[in-house]
Parts: sequence; C-alpha cells; structure tokens
Amino acid sequence: MATVTLLQDEEGSAEALAVFDDIRATRGADFINNFWRALAHDPALLKATWDRLKVVMGPGTLDPLTKEMVYIAVSVANACEYCAHSHTAAAKANGMTPEMYGELLSVIGMASQTNALATAMQVPVDPEFQT
Amino acid sequence: MATVTLLQDEEGSAEALAVFDDIRATRGADFINNFWRALAHDPALLKATWDRLKVVMGPGTLDPLTKEMVYIAVSVANACEYCAHSHTAAAKANGMTPEMYGELLSVIGMASQTNALATAMQVPVDPEFQT
Amino acid sequence: MATVTLLQDEEGSAEALAVFDDIRATRGADFINNFWRALAHDPALLKATWDRLKVVMGPGTLDPLTKEMVYIAVSVANACEYCAHSHTAAAKANGMTPEMYGELLSVIGMASQTNALATAMQVPVDPEFQT
Amino acid sequence: MATVTLLQDEEGSAEALAVFDDIRATRGADFINNFWRALAHDPALLKATWDRLKVVMGPGTLDPLTKEMVYIAVSVANACEYCAHSHTAAAKANGMTPEMYGELLSVIGMASQTNALATAMQVPVDPEFQT
Amino acid sequence: MATVTLLQDEEGSAEALAVFDDIRATRGADFINNFWRALAHDPALLKATWDRLKVVMGPGTLDPLTKEMVYIAVSVANACEYCAHSHTAAAKANGMTPEMYGELLSVIGMASQTNALATAMQVPVDPEFQT
Amino acid sequence: MATVTLLQDEEGSAEALAVFDDIRATRGADFINNFWRALAHDPALLKATWDRLKVVMGPGTLDPLTKEMVYIAVSVANACEYCAHSHTAAAKANGMTPEMYGELLSVIGMASQTNALATAMQVPVDPEFQT
Repeated sequence: MATVTLLQDEEGSAEALAVFDDIRATRGADFINNFWRALAHDPALLKATWDRLKVVMGPGTLDPLTKEMVYIAVSVANACEYCAHSHTAAAKANGMTPEMYGELLSVIGMASQTNALATAMQVPVDPEFQT
Repeated sequence: MATVTLLQDEEGSAEALAVFDDIRATRGADFINNFWRALAHDPALLKATWDRLKVVMGPGTLDPLTKEMVYIAVSVANACEYCAHSHTAAAKANGMTPEMYGELLSVIGMASQTNALATAMQVPVDPEFQT
Repeated sequence: MATVTLLQDEEGSAEALAVFDDIRATRGADFINNFWRALAHDPALLKATWDRLKVVMGPGTLDPLTKEMVYIAVSVANACEYCAHSHTAAAKANGMTPEMYGELLSVIGMASQTNALATAMQVPVDPEFQT
Repeated sequence: MATVTLLQDEEGSAEALAVFDDIRATRGADFINNFWRALAHDPALLKATWDRLKVVMGPGTLDPLTKEMVYIAVSVANACEYCAHSHTAAAKANGMTPEMYGELLSVIGMASQTNALATAMQVPVDPEFQT
Repeated sequence: MATVTLLQDEEGSAEALAVFDDIRATRGADFINNFWRALAHDPALLKATWDRLKVVMGPGTLDPLTKEMVYIAVSVANACEYCAHSHTAAAKANGMTPEMYGELLSVIGMASQTNALATAMQVPVDPEFQT
Repeated sequence: MATVTLLQDEEGSAEALAVFDDIRATRGADFINNFWRALAHDPALLKATWDRLKVVMGPGTLDPLTKEMVYIAVSVANACEYCAHSHTAAAKANGMTPEMYGELLSVIGMASQTNALATAMQVPVDPEFQT
C-alpha cells in the first residue's frame, strides 16, 4: 500500500543491491526492512540516505540507545507511523527497558504539552537563554 | 510580546508565588524564566504543569541530559522557538558539549528526513516490528 | 520583515481596495491588519480568502467565541506566531475571559500531550469509535 | 499493532486497575478504550495522565462540547489518527450535531489555510494585537 | 473507517450531486474519490472546497504537475496519509516519472532536514533575505 | 540569538572554511548566509549537509525553480521561519514572479486545508490510488 512497490532482491539494480549488502553487513542480519525496499526505486537516494544514516547512527559521543530515543521523539512529533514502529523496535533492540520507554513517553508528552503552551502564549525568550 | 503579561513576583497570587518558591528551591537559583511568569496568570495550570515537570524531569532511569536532548528533539519538530532556546540552555547546563550538540542535531536532521520519506511513500510497517 | 511588503491603501489595486472596504464594513472598524495587507499583492487570493473567512466565521450553529478558540487551537498546533496573536486578540474581543483562556490552554496542552502518547504507542482505534 | 500490548483487566497491576476503576466510575460505563490499556504498562504515567485529563475535561467555564471540539482541532493539526477518532466520538456523545461538525471542519480547514499563508509570508504581528 | 460514512450517489442531496456532476465533468471521468464522498455530508463545505480547488489547481502560471508536486510536499509535511496517496496518484497522472518522483522525494527530505536544523539552532534571518 | 554563535571566516576551522569556499564557488558569490555560519561549529555536519544540498538542488529532471517552490512548501508546513525567508529569496532569484508566488501560496493554502479535512474525517484511501 506504499506509493511504490517494495523492491525484492531479485528485482534490484546493482547499485541498490550493493546498498542492501552493506545494510546486511553493517547490521549482521539478513533482514532488509520495507523502508529501504521502498527507497530502492531510486538507488542514488537509497545510497545517500543509507550512507548518511550509517554515519549519524554510528559510533560517536552519544550512545546508540540515546540516539534511538531522540529518533523516536522526532518521529512522534512528526506523526510518522512507520518510524514510530521501526525506531521503537530499534530502541528495544538497543536495550530500552519498559521502564525507560515509559519515562521516554513521559518526557515526550511533557515536551509536547509545554511546546503548545509556550507557542500559544508566545512567551518571549529570556535574555539568560541567549548565547 | 506574549499574549499575556509576564507576572512579576509582587503581582503574583499566593498560589502562584508558592510555585515560584518551589521552582527556586528545586533549582537552587533565584531566576524564574518567562514561561512560568506567563503561566502564572492561571495558578492552577501553573501548578499542575510545574508539579508534573518536576516529576518527569526528575530522577529516574534516564539521566537528566538524555531527557533534555529528547525535549529539544520534540521542541524542534514542533517548531517551538521558546522551547528550543530554553531546553538547549538546560542541556548545556546538564553537560552537553559542542560535540554532543552537533551529534544531536545530526540525529534530529536525519530523523526529520527519513520521517518525510517514509510518510511520502507510505511505507507499510514490517511485521517484524509489530509487538 | 515579511516576504512581501504590506500594501498600503494608496498602493492597492481596485480589487484589493474593494476587499479592504468589505473588511471594514463587516467589522465596523477602519483597521486592516497586516495579514490582509500582505495578501493584497495577489488580489484574487485576497478576495477568495476573505470571502471564505467571512462565511466560515460568520453566523452558524457554533458561536463566534467557540470558533475563535478552535482557530487558536489549530494555530498553536501549527506553530503560527501571527495567528496565535491575531486570534487570541479576536477571542478576547469576543468575550474570552482570563479564566476561559486558562482553560483553553489546559485543553490544548492536554490534547498535545495525549496526541503524542497515542502516536508514540500507535494505539489501534477501538471498534467502538468507528462510524 | 501498537508498540505495546493492550493490557487486559486480568493482567493489570493494582495501580493500573485502580485507574481503570476510576475511569469506569467517572464515565459511568464499563468500556475502557485502547489508549488507557496501552498506557497501563506504565501505571504512574497512566495515573498522571488520567488524573490530569479528568480535571482538564471536567467542569469549568468552558462546556464539555467546546472542549471536545478544541481537542479535535489540536488532534487534527497533529495528525493523530487515534485521537481524531476518539474525540470525534466523544464530541458526538456530547451533542455535536452533523451541522456543528461540518462547521467545526470548516473552521479547522480555514485556520489551516491561513496559518500556512501567514507563515509563508512571515507576516509581522500588528502592534494592535500586542498585550 | 472514516468519522462519517462515504456518501453514495443515491444518498446525496441535490446540492451534493451537483458538485459530483461538476467533478465528473471537469475531470472527464466517472470516478468520485472518497474525499468528496466524505465531505458530501456537508454540501456547503463540499461545494466551497471543490469550487476553490478547481480554481487553484486549474490553469495559471504554474503547470499542473508542479502544483501536484507542491501539494505532495505540503501533504507529507502535514503527515496526511490520504493526501500523500491521492496527490501522488494525481502527479503520476500528470506525467511525473519515477526519476522526477525520486528527485521530488530528495528535495522534500532535504528541506525537512534543514528545516529542523535551522529551527534547532534558531538561526536569525539574514538582512539580505529581507524584502 | 541563535543557540550558537555565527562563525566568522577568521574563526573557522580548515574544514569549515573549505566548505565556505565551495559554497562561494558553486554560487559564484561571496555571501555566506547565516545557516551555514551556524552549522560551521560542527564542520562534519556542515560538510555533509552542504554536499548533499548541492546534489539535491543541482541539475536533474526538475528545474531549479520547481525545487525551490517545493522547498518553500515543506518549510511553510514545518513552520520554519528562517527557511521561509531564505527559500523565498532563492525562488525569486530563480525567476519566481509575483504571479507565480501568489499561485504557489494558493496551492500551499489549499493543500493545508484539505490535509486537515482528510485527516479530521480519517478518509480511507481509495483502492484506485493504491500502487
């Protein structure tokens, strides 16, 4: 029910399949989720997106679970159904416990509420917060 | 330039001032930022919001900096100018380094991009991601 | 600081000025707010927008204040700075008291929070809610 | 298909069941909708959300139907599928007629349109709208 | 599963059927998509929406495909599932090739990303961009 | 008033300055707008963003003006003040006339309105629109 068909391995171009190979090697798993199969219709976009994702979500100063929780937060605020599911699954795979998930939801809910209040009242930014 | 005036200490109701006192005691600082001064026109809403915030952002399984970064992520996706400023300041106060901030921005940017792609193509959720 | 200049009366085309006249007559006031002065660069868009607004916000089964509060709610969720200001002013002009405003903010905040929670958990719609 | 299973009565913790009891008593109905069953995995979040909702949507200066229509407006702008369904059902239960619903949709549509136009042109706020 | 039933031709009021007739005549096709069948419960809203859409999407200085691509872009950012499907279909019917679609997605993804970055950092508008 | 200072040429790291050089060479102009000066605090993010933008907005099957108009559409829906200004300026530089701008605004306004209506009524996607 996507706007494009989900590309199966046997249908893929060489460039798309090379990205699939890299996804499998990076993750150490055979499973390619639908997002990449949908993007594969445009191999250049597939490659650019995956290459960047690999860097952004790879090793750095923030740990993988923190990154996945930030990803969930953005996805929820953008009302992305697919992303809420895929990144919640990824966060669980990275060690998010039910307690952590409940706390994450609490922060997301709180932020959504105070975002609305601050925007409604058009609260001016305190000079103390300025760089 | 808010839709309400920012309540000064000498103008506040007893209920509002009790919340201001609790904010000061909790933070160990005299500064009350504009968000609370704007909300103070409705002491019940002020108190409910602050009481909940204190719990949500207080001790738990997620550390304070992680919570502030999640808060920034939601605020950015909701385009809340005040919140972007106030929670970036709070994250810095909680130890966010320039490197961490750059990485946080990278994740927020990546999520925003893939949210849009997944929504545009209406990618169906993989059964593997279902609970 | 708009992307267009704000059209002054003496600069307007006949079609734009006719709309300004109708705004003044409908509202019984000389003041034309910046939104219409910005739109006036495209008289057809100005006229279509005003003509529709006049019908939508005019007499019907919902009272004017309810309509303005709904307008504020949408504007806040869409993070429209101009609209938050202009429709809060309009709601006050239509009788919104500080108590009503505080209650409106409470509902907007609550809805924003539960929207985020329901989207985060991707809660399936109960059959009981289906038409 | 939620990110959590929907808690059934026999699975609930004592704290979650106490909230379910209060929902039933407040509404005078046995039905517990999925939103609360999903939240019930985190009893503290369930309780905080329900306790606040009961106050916000309870008696005040705005009537229950107005509150539900504001809730719909926010939910639509936030693209919350579950909330659009649940609060439209609630508004109908509170007396929203088809005529009122059509008018509500007209206001929501109008606001969405003018929000976009004001944001696109970055119209400066009139001094007349400033508090 | 809409909040209203989808009006069938034999159920429609004279005013609704007149709009259906005009949709069919304008498009040269018998098919009436669900959006209009849902709106048909409020014939005045149906007529106002269709009449305006016909003008906006009709002949002008922008070609029909460009308009449909802009429509997709807005719909994606607003997370409108129905609209993503219907306007992607319309764009394809207006000649959007897979290459153009991939490029459109790339621009939408890029914009979503830089929108988030600019909002996160609250970058001040350059004087050079001011009108 | 950004959350970071705007990096001046003399403060930049070698990697940041190399990106500035490429921006200047690509655009054939000395002016570096604030977005890049803000991003320059994280040279890797600066470089990744610019490198991708150059490809996405560069030659392809969609002409530069169409891309800028799509960029405006996304930016408006995301309520990005900076982006509305910068990409409206870019569209004008790419030949957008006042007539085209008015038409673009009309499409953005129409899409915003029907997005809200389709989401509010939760209109099911027609089988005819499915791939």
